Formats: sequence, C-alpha cells, structure tokens
Amino acid sequence: MDEPGRESVQNEAMDYEAIQEKRSDELTALLDHRSMRTLKQRMEEMNEFDVAEFLSGIEDNRMPMVFRLLSKETAADVFANFDVPDQERIINSMTDSELAGIIEELYVDDAVDLMEELPANVVKRVMRTATPQTRALINQYLHYPEDSAGSIMTSEFVDLKKYMSVKESFARIRRIGEDKETIYICFVISAHRKLEGIVTVKDLLLADDDAIVEDLMDRNVIFATTTEDQESVSEKFSDYDLMALPVVDTEGRLVGIVTVDDIIDVMEQETTEDFELMAAMTPSDKPYSRSTILEIWKNRIPWLMFLMLSATFTSMILTHFEDMLAVQAALIAFIPTLMGTGGNSGAQASTAVIRSLSLGDTEPKDAFSVMWKEFRVAFLCGLTLCAVNFVKMLVLDGMIMHNDGITVSVALTVSLAILFIVIFAKVVGSMLPIGAEKIGVDPAVMANPLISTVTDTVSLLIYIYMAKLILHI
Amino acid sequence: MDEPGRESVQNEAMDYEAIQEKRSDELTALLDHRSMRTLKQRMEEMNEFDVAEFLSGIEDNRMPMVFRLLSKETAADVFANFDVPDQERIINSMTDSELAGIIEELYVDDAVDLMEELPANVVKRVMRTATPQTRALINQYLHYPEDSAGSIMTSEFVDLKKYMSVKESFARIRRIGEDKETIYICFVISAHRKLEGIVTVKDLLLADDDAIVEDLMDRNVIFATTTEDQESVSEKFSDYDLMALPVVDTEGRLVGIVTVDDIIDVMEQETTEDFELMAAMTPSDKPYSRSTILEIWKNRIPWLMFLMLSATFTSMILTHFEDMLAVQAALIAFIPTLMGTGGNSGAQASTAVIRSLSLGDTEPKDAFSVMWKEFRVAFLCGLTLCAVNFVKMLVLDGMIMHNDGITVSVALTVSLAILFIVIFAKVVGSMLPIGAEKIGVDPAVMANPLISTVTDTVSLLIYIYMAKLILHI
Repeated sequence: MDEPGRESVQNEAMDYEAIQEKRSDELTALLDHRSMRTLKQRMEEMNEFDVAEFLSGIEDNRMPMVFRLLSKETAADVFANFDVPDQERIINSMTDSELAGIIEELYVDDAVDLMEELPANVVKRVMRTATPQTRALINQYLHYPEDSAGSIMTSEFVDLKKYMSVKESFARIRRIGEDKETIYICFVISAHRKLEGIVTVKDLLLADDDAIVEDLMDRNVIFATTTEDQESVSEKFSDYDLMALPVVDTEGRLVGIVTVDDIIDVMEQETTEDFELMAAMTPSDKPYSRSTILEIWKNRIPWLMFLMLSATFTSMILTHFEDMLAVQAALIAFIPTLMGTGGNSGAQASTAVIRSLSLGDTEPKDAFSVMWKEFRVAFLCGLTLCAVNFVKMLVLDGMIMHNDGITVSVALTVSLAILFIVIFAKVVGSMLPIGAEKIGVDPAVMANPLISTVTDTVSLLIYIYMAKLILHI
Repeated sequence: MDEPGRESVQNEAMDYEAIQEKRSDELTALLDHRSMRTLKQRMEEMNEFDVAEFLSGIEDNRMPMVFRLLSKETAADVFANFDVPDQERIINSMTDSELAGIIEELYVDDAVDLMEELPANVVKRVMRTATPQTRALINQYLHYPEDSAGSIMTSEFVDLKKYMSVKESFARIRRIGEDKETIYICFVISAHRKLEGIVTVKDLLLADDDAIVEDLMDRNVIFATTTEDQESVSEKFSDYDLMALPVVDTEGRLVGIVTVDDIIDVMEQETTEDFELMAAMTPSDKPYSRSTILEIWKNRIPWLMFLMLSATFTSMILTHFEDMLAVQAALIAFIPTLMGTGGNSGAQASTAVIRSLSLGDTEPKDAFSVMWKEFRVAFLCGLTLCAVNFVKMLVLDGMIMHNDGITVSVALTVSLAILFIVIFAKVVGSMLPIGAEKIGVDPAVMANPLISTVTDTVSLLIYIYMAKLILHI
C-alpha cells in the first residue's frame, strides 16, 4: 500500500496547505511530462475540489483533455466544483454523449444550479442531451421560486417505509445508497409519499437487526416547505444543528432534502446580500470577479442617484442660512466634522441592530429597550466626543493654528452640537432597522448610506440651532 | 403508536413554525395544570432546541423545576442549547452532584464554551464538581488560542485501527458510538495516535464484512492543525463540503475533530465581526442584547474619536479657503452633496472588494484588474451623476427655487467635481482593502467610515480646484 512518493498524512508535520501545494506541483510536472496514466491515478485519489482547482489553473486548451482522463463518477463530482466559465469550457469541448453522461451523474441540485447560470444556448444543448426523466426533474426544480427551499433541495435521498426491519433498511441503504447525497438520515414515508418520520443510520446501527423502523423513527420531524425562504431554512440548520432537512409540498409529501453543505453556500450568499444592501448596492447573484462593468453600474447607480438627490435638503438648509453662516465663517469649517460624526455614530448603532436582528438576538418587540440602550450609549459617546472636541478646538485650532474665529463660544457651539447629533444619530440609527423589519423590508437597507443622509440634514439643523442659541446670530 | 392528541407530520399541511407554536401552547397548558408526567413525556420527545426555547420562556422560578424533570441525557442536550444567563440560572439551582452529572454528559466543546462565558465564581464551582479526567480535558482545551481550531474542536470521535475488519469496526462504533458527536466519519489512527486516514460509515456499509479498514480508508485526509485560525477551518468546510474535519497537533497526532454544526456558528461569528469592523466598531464576542452600556461604549468610542479628529483636515482646508468660498457662497451649499456622494461611491467599491476577498473570489494579486474595473465603473457612474446633477441644479435649484447663485458655471463646477470625486473614491475604495489584506490587516476595516474620511478631504480639494479652474476665483 505504501508506493514510493505517495503522500500520507502520518509522515508529515506540515499543514494541509503545504501538502496541497506540493501535490499541485507534482501534477503540473506529470502533465508537462505527459505522464497521463500517473496523472489520472493521482487525480482519482484526490478530493474533487482540489482536482477542480488544479484543472482551473491549466490555462491552455489541454484542460478539457485532462478532464477527459477522469472516470465518469469523478468527472461529475469535479464538474460540480467548477466555476461557471470552466463548466462552459468543458461543455463546449464535449460530445453530446459525454455531456449526457455528466448530467446524469450530477445531483439534481447541482444540475439546477448549472441551468440557472449557463447561457441559454448552452442550457438548450444540455437539456436536449439529458434523459426525459432528468429533464422533467430539472424543469420541475427550476419552477420553484428563486431562493426557496425548493430551489436548493435535491432529490437524492434514502426513503424507507415504517414497517421495514433494520436488516431490510440496511439492505435498501446498501442498494440505493451509492448515489445519495446523504445516507445517514433516512426519511420514512407512507404509500402516498407523506413524510412520517426520520431515522438515522446511528439509530439503525445501535438497534437489533429485527427491530422495526416505526419503533426507532423520530416522528417529531423538523421540515421545510418548498416555497419557504432559504434564509428561514438556514436558520433551522443553525438552531437545530441539522445535517439534512426534508422539504415537503403543500400536501405534506416529501419532495426533496436540503443538505448542510448547501446551507453553507446559502449562508455565504445571504451574507453577501446583506453586505451589498448595507453599502447601498442592489444585490447580485454573480460574483464580483465575473460581473461586467455595466452590471456593476446597474447595481450601484440607483442608490447613488437617490442619495445624491436626497442631499438636496442639506443644500437647501445651507442656502437658507447662508447669511448667518457668513457672519460666523468659522462655523463652516466644522460642518464635515459634524456630519461625519453623525453618520459614523448612526452607522454603528444601525449595524449593531441589523446584525442582532438577523441573528435573532433582538426582535422588533424589543424596540423600546434597544432605544433606551442606544440613548444611554449615545449619551456617553456624545459626552466624550463633546469634551475632547472642545479641548481640541481651543488648543489645536485656536492656540496652535492661530485661527482667530475659534472663540470659546464657537467651540462650545460645535461641541454641544456633537453631543446632540450623536444622540439623534444613534437613536434613529437603531430604530430604522427595527421599523424596516416590522414593515417587512430588509433591515440591511437601513445602513450607513441611508442613515447618513438622514443624519446629515438633522445634524445641520441641530448645528444651526446651537449657533443661534449660543452665538445669538 | 398513535396516541390521541399526538402530533404527527402526515396529518398536517401546516408549516413547522405553526406546529411549534401549537406544541408550545400545549406545554404551557400542561405546566399550568401541573401535569408533570405528560409534560416530561412531551419534552423528551421534542428537539432539544425547542425544549430550551420553551424553558427559556418560563419567566418565574418554575423553570429549574421543569428542567429537573428531564432525563440526564436530554438535560445535557437542552442545557447546551441555553443562552448563558439561563445556564447560570440552572447551575445556581442545582446541587453539586446534579451539576457534575450535566457536565460529564456535555460534549467537551460545549463544556469549554461554557467555561469561557460563565463568571469566574461559577466556573470554579463547575470545575470542582467535574471528574479529574473531564477537568484535565477542559483545561487542555481552554489552553488553545481563542478562535483556533483547537478551541472549537471536540474530543468525542470514533477512532479505528487500519487492521480492523468492517465487522470489528461496526462492533466498535456500536460500543462507543452512543456518546460521539458524529459516528459517520471514523478516523483511522496508528498506535501513536497519528492520523492515517478516514473511513465513512457509508464506505463500511457498502463493503463486505471481512474487508479491512486499510483497504477502504481515504489516505488523502483534509485536516487542520490545533492553532489554525477558525476562519481557515470554515473555508475548508465550505470548499470541500465536509461534515467533520480532524484536528492534529504539531506531531500529526489526532487530538480532536470539528463538526459542521460548530462551523455554522463560526461563520455567524466571523460575519458579525466583519459587520462590526465595517461600521467602525471593535468586535465583541458578546451578543448585542447582553452587552452592557459601558461595553458598547468601549467598542465604539475609539473609532468615533479617531474619525472625528481625522476630520480636522477638512476643517483646515475649509478654513484655508474661507475667503474664496465667501466670494462664491453658493458653493458651500453643495459640500455635503459632494462628500456624501464620494463616501457612498467609495463604500460601494470597498464593500464589493472586501466581500470578494473574503469569499476567495478576488486575491491581492488581482489588484490591477480590480483597479481598472473600478475605474471604468466609476467613470460610468460619475458621468451619470454628473449629468443628472447638472440638470437638477439648473432646473430645481436655479429656476424653480430661484437661487440666483446657481449659474451655469457653478453647476458645471459641482457636476465635474462629482465625476472626479466618484472616480477617486471608487479607485481608492477598492484598493485600500486589497492593501490591507497584503499587509495582514483585516480588509473589513477599510469600509465606509474610514473610506469616507479619506474621500472627504480629497473631495474638498477636487471641488476647490474645479472652482479655481472654472470660476477663476
């Protein structure tokens, strides 16, 4: 078993990345020396993800040729791990029968993902080569709403009947288990395919051979419905520490399962969506590196435009008080400081609340306690900034930089404005996401850019009011 | 098997949440009627997470009493699902021997989490009641760096030897499997506990009874080292679709495993950290709802202070050009618009790049192509905003609102400034996160607040330069 040159964990005190790199160098050498048999053998031993990474790294037209070395099963697994551009490259280099082979080997959820991302003409060709059964299944899955449990589920699960014995169950698992995404959770269904319970391989292993599934199964099944949002599905995995979740249709019939590896992708996708919303971008399904200039422009320009035009309010206020500001020109210099501090304070509060809402740590009904908490935090932050700014203006701007416009009254005006602006920004910043959640809008929208636009206007008004009060202008 | 009133999925076309709510009402009714036997029976059938949710909802001092109804195994599982405050409540209501029972039943990773979060005096009591073996194990785990693979791993795994037959393996799994976090992935170790391979229950099930583990096991094991960062561990789960990952020490000895349910928690924690960094807050381990006012203040004030003081540059610029701005007072009104647009444009670019870096979609070596992409997107966005703003200023501010200061030249100054500001903001916003990644700083820091502070200063300079150029002042 120990061929020379073969990697084995036990001889290494290096980390997995180093092993990876060494192996990748070895593969490249094999390819350059055209040692195709050894190359094939090495690739078959490797993890599919690593093979996909290696193949993606081959720049020239040798890539499809190397891909062809793989056995049918490995080829499908590797194919599922490719990015869309590489999948296209491979499809375009394959004959119809090779393509059909790959499609039939793919899990249905991977095939559906592929159909959703490939260009229409390639989809047509793939669908034409698939068997009628596969085609019907893919079409059915494509029919579920985007980002629903139905759209991410797969049909490759092990189903059992409740009258089966443990021995019969294992026989069935052995017979049909080879191609299933998970065999460890088996789903017990009635003659009408209604979900009646689940039983794990652990339950089966720890039971006697002639025990009956009905006595072992858990009837208290956690499940999702086909139209349920994927975010709610992913919460169930996180709450209940699941490996797989059954998906039922409106009649309670089992139509598919979602596995935990797909949920990790969903979580990444939902997080990306939140990031994009929070930075005032329209969420996109495409990764940044594969988005075109025009696509990125389309996702960014609506919000930029809206926010730019909203700033008209601040222009109007400044125009209105032009004469007043002319009397105390020193005040103008601190407008950016005030707006920046307001925006940053609001962003902190809104981000904390958005995240807390999305983790289920805070709920809309906690609105009052959140407001009271943010008020107190804001008072502390505001007071600190107010004091530091007062000293800074008198010492740095006034004494060191000899700015004659900076009197004690001016420093007091700016500093007190900061206190009230921070309080306003934090309270509003924490309440807007909760309000959004209440009316069914994604709270992530109420992040920095939108909050800044709101606080900018109010910050100016607070500033001008302070100036009137303290400087009597 | 079908007792009256018993919930069963097959009769329902409702979703899981509705079933949950109905069950929770039933439990409350049982508690109010003091039907403790039925209550205990119902709780034993339910998922531990749901039992924990139900118990957490009991406000008064009946909660520990109801918790005591649970069997030892269920009690430990439910306990692991509690929030820290509820865990404390339970611990304080338990005798030492009850407490010891719970601790011994907990998986080591859950026990370690508990020790990290409980107050020191409670930790002392818990450690005192644990057996010496458990105490030693907990202490060893507490020793690993925070957020390392060692700190999130658990010791409850199934180990096999390579000379074992399938039959012997199943016998071992049946004997020791009951208390393991996963039995589906078994780890093959040498006499010196070095990791030699992994074999899944699927492999074992599909093989003959007298096949030997060595011939079935996969030697190409993906593993982590004890000190490896949890973010890198979570990437491995996402890349390789893993259920469990072995963790080895520097000598290659297997010391624990990380399971996928823990990785879902890690992903949530890392995302929260990114959110916090991106909104200029020091990341905290504590959920928002449990953080005190002072803790929140401590996490927020350093950045607010730094950003406020950085705004001194904008004050200096504005003071320096005071006389010039006095000549064309209309220009002042558009300072917030320009700064806001610059900040928002930069935030979009930086967020897109931060996320793309963290998903491995973009790498620091792509810096040039990212810059070129952002330049072209910025040119398009800038041009659009420039045109819209020009028309808006002339029509809305000039004609409709009769602001005499808005001449064609002023509108052109502001609009052209927008074009250049957007280009600057997007290019810098995309490059700063890549720069941070290169020097080993978390790119998430280079988000909206910091980018805004940079773009604010430059936006003003661009604006003033434009005014000089076009308005000759």
